[in-house]
Amino acid sequence: MTTDTQQQQQQQELTITRYEVCDIRFPTSKHLDGSDAMNKDPDYSAAYVIFYTNDTRLEGHGMTFTCGRGTEVCCSAIEALAGKFVGRTLSSLTVDMRQTHQICTGDSQLRWIGPEKGAIHLATAAVINAIWDLWAKHEKKPLWKLIVDMTPEQFVQCIDFKYITDALTPQEALDMLKANHPTKAQREQEMRNNGYPAYTTSAGWLGYSDDKVRRLCREAKEQGFTYFKQKVGGDKASDIRRAALIREEIGSDGVLMMDANQIWDVQEAIDWMQDLLPFNPLFIEEPTSPDDVLGHAAIRKALYPKTKVATGEHIQNRIIFKQLFQAQAIDYCQIDSCRVAGVNEILAILLMAKKFNIPVVPHAGGVGLCEYVQHLSLVDYICVSATIEDRVLEYVDHLHEHFLDPVVIKNGCYVAPLAPGYSITMKRQSIDDYSFPKGRVHNE
Amino acid sequence: MTTDTQQQQQQQELTITRYEVCDIRFPTSKHLDGSDAMNKDPDYSAAYVIFYTNDTRLEGHGMTFTCGRGTEVCCSAIEALAGKFVGRTLSSLTVDMRQTHQICTGDSQLRWIGPEKGAIHLATAAVINAIWDLWAKHEKKPLWKLIVDMTPEQFVQCIDFKYITDALTPQEALDMLKANHPTKAQREQEMRNNGYPAYTTSAGWLGYSDDKVRRLCREAKEQGFTYFKQKVGGDKASDIRRAALIREEIGSDGVLMMDANQIWDVQEAIDWMQDLLPFNPLFIEEPTSPDDVLGHAAIRKALYPKTKVATGEHIQNRIIFKQLFQAQAIDYCQIDSCRVAGVNEILAILLMAKKFNIPVVPHAGGVGLCEYVQHLSLVDYICVSATIEDRVLEYVDHLHEHFLDPVVIKNGCYVAPLAPGYSITMKRQSIDDYSFPKGRVHNE
Repeated sequence: MTTDTQQQQQQQELTITRYEVCDIRFPTSKHLDGSDAMNKDPDYSAAYVIFYTNDTRLEGHGMTFTCGRGTEVCCSAIEALAGKFVGRTLSSLTVDMRQTHQICTGDSQLRWIGPEKGAIHLATAAVINAIWDLWAKHEKKPLWKLIVDMTPEQFVQCIDFKYITDALTPQEALDMLKANHPTKAQREQEMRNNGYPAYTTSAGWLGYSDDKVRRLCREAKEQGFTYFKQKVGGDKASDIRRAALIREEIGSDGVLMMDANQIWDVQEAIDWMQDLLPFNPLFIEEPTSPDDVLGHAAIRKALYPKTKVATGEHIQNRIIFKQLFQAQAIDYCQIDSCRVAGVNEILAILLMAKKFNIPVVPHAGGVGLCEYVQHLSLVDYICVSATIEDRVLEYVDHLHEHFLDPVVIKNGCYVAPLAPGYSITMKRQSIDDYSFPKGRVHNE
Repeated sequence: MTTDTQQQQQQQELTITRYEVCDIRFPTSKHLDGSDAMNKDPDYSAAYVIFYTNDTRLEGHGMTFTCGRGTEVCCSAIEALAGKFVGRTLSSLTVDMRQTHQICTGDSQLRWIGPEKGAIHLATAAVINAIWDLWAKHEKKPLWKLIVDMTPEQFVQCIDFKYITDALTPQEALDMLKANHPTKAQREQEMRNNGYPAYTTSAGWLGYSDDKVRRLCREAKEQGFTYFKQKVGGDKASDIRRAALIREEIGSDGVLMMDANQIWDVQEAIDWMQDLLPFNPLFIEEPTSPDDVLGHAAIRKALYPKTKVATGEHIQNRIIFKQLFQAQAIDYCQIDSCRVAGVNEILAILLMAKKFNIPVVPHAGGVGLCEYVQHLSLVDYICVSATIEDRVLEYVDHLHEHFLDPVVIKNGCYVAPLAPGYSITMKRQSIDDYSFPKGRVHNE
């Protein structure tokens, strides 16, 4: 029973009063931005959720990234989850973020349509990230700073260790965080001064002409980038020609990364890469199915150390990441901010990567992903990895204009964001204009 | 350009004209039917699709099984897929079932919300199975017979080998099928005479009282069942007491199987099972996360041969099954008829299981799963495995009354179904009564 006093107290506390779900689609396929061997014509989209509160100045925003069709499925999944948070005070959620995460992942009926994968897990990311955004805004801190200011105990308390204790125990996590705790302030200052190093994918899309690739490489170099990514796997002759061209533009000092977007079977990946090794790629990204832990291990074994293996943007959850680490299947861990269940699960993956000594090189691009992941790389460096050696953060120069607090790149680095929240709040005009199917843009 | 003659021809051909998607929920949680360590209160449900044609007597029905909440998400995913088939002639789909399967799995935008997993893959199963149902009805054959009558070449042509060629090539598949081809008729006759052996899960639910379990064991024995399944993982003392009780009822000859429904971490599974080994379980089913190939391998290594490891009902696709086989992680392959993408992907898994010499023991229960899988076990025996040694088909006595052509159990065996189609057509009255949220049952 709730007494009158408790009711009054609750009225004063920040409380989620309602939510809104938006299906937002940008018609990017018109210009072949984002075209690769698997994703021929993505319309970068967001299944977007807003939690409104009893304080009209405070809203929690979150989204999961999608590619056009199917966004409505993720929106339906968000609807299934978001209602669980209406009526909850923020403090009742933030007091135990592990439990808050489990509100989404632990629904005994909803888990059937996952568990912890696919549309329901993408939706979980949107919802969980919106709670984190609300929390950070309420604390008047950027998301990364909210987490950096946690004690190691508070950090560990955010993580659901279910199914990963054979790779990482809560005590091991705590010990790693404690070891870095005393030097956090120093790394935070360094990040505030210099930012986090970035690389660009903007030049390497399959759908661009050779001339456009050349021009974009030059522009990127001028902006201070030293890592470049090429999409491969469409046509081998074209891959070779394009690799030579990019290598020519970026010189032998430039770092070339290749990305096959899951186009190959295991042996096919090994064979195809033989012809691209002369161009000295740092890694081949997504050589095969993201579900194939043993396949990645086989590919890595065949190619290492001539090139290395990276994956992550389609890795469905911490359990697959755990196995990729255990099987020595990857050299680079490319976390995605909203493929797994948002901040909480990301923290688990950062810690496992640290334990297995695998650098975290986040996936970004699409819409909103750059805004999200800059926070995660800062948390990784300041709290977990304590090194930026062999680490860069993906950057793609698309669609940032729709955010209230867009990413800022300076000298090839992400500038540490300072506005409160998770940087994912979209402008209302953009939400309205690009809402599908009724927004202005879709009816022109 | 379509000429008048072509148009007339098409009008005479069987053509899909429209579809209907139904969210059907049975309030089974009221009686704790289906309660286990992870699924505490399932409302057995179906995301259901009907393809209507230009012949009012011919409809294709398909469904994917769900647990209540979340069914609407799968329905949304079915809506995203089913439209692709409207206007298509049946013959244009059946001429290349691999390509028909890829209509669903190969959508370059939709695959982002999978790929090939979670809600979109469950929806793919409903849609693909509905096409198979329509085809079988059109051919006036039960689904199993439609496949059994295929040549090995036609069988292989149904399968998408993407991402599994490192485990099974089309040629290997063809060779295995050809080896069994000459003796198919003999096995078909045997199945028509005797049916396929079944086991029952009806007795072992966690939520039932000891007395109810005892009574159900006795009834099952009287019906000819010799395999029994116990749900474990809730409370260890209770598991031990219940195991002793069931063992007492079924005798030392009866086969006891245990099912943890993913409740444990890897080491926890190994430790917990130590105390249940004295009751001589044939296998432990779903000891941990279905995503954890290496975890299953570790559990199997620790427990084999005192007990064995089974899993499958939550295995998302052929790629995870491939790895379970490659890693020697399981002893029994429990395919689910609508977790993976329906008939086509099942055929791939049956063939891989054969190659790795792992018996297929399908998952059933819920609603509609028994109706579906009886066809798959017949195909497995007649075309692929050519043995029923160590194989039984799960049977749960729930909700069969809603189907036009429900399963028939005789002497502990599934009787081979003879009605045309995939046995999944639900009575219209049931569809209407249980439709959520507007059906009669949900408004009483």
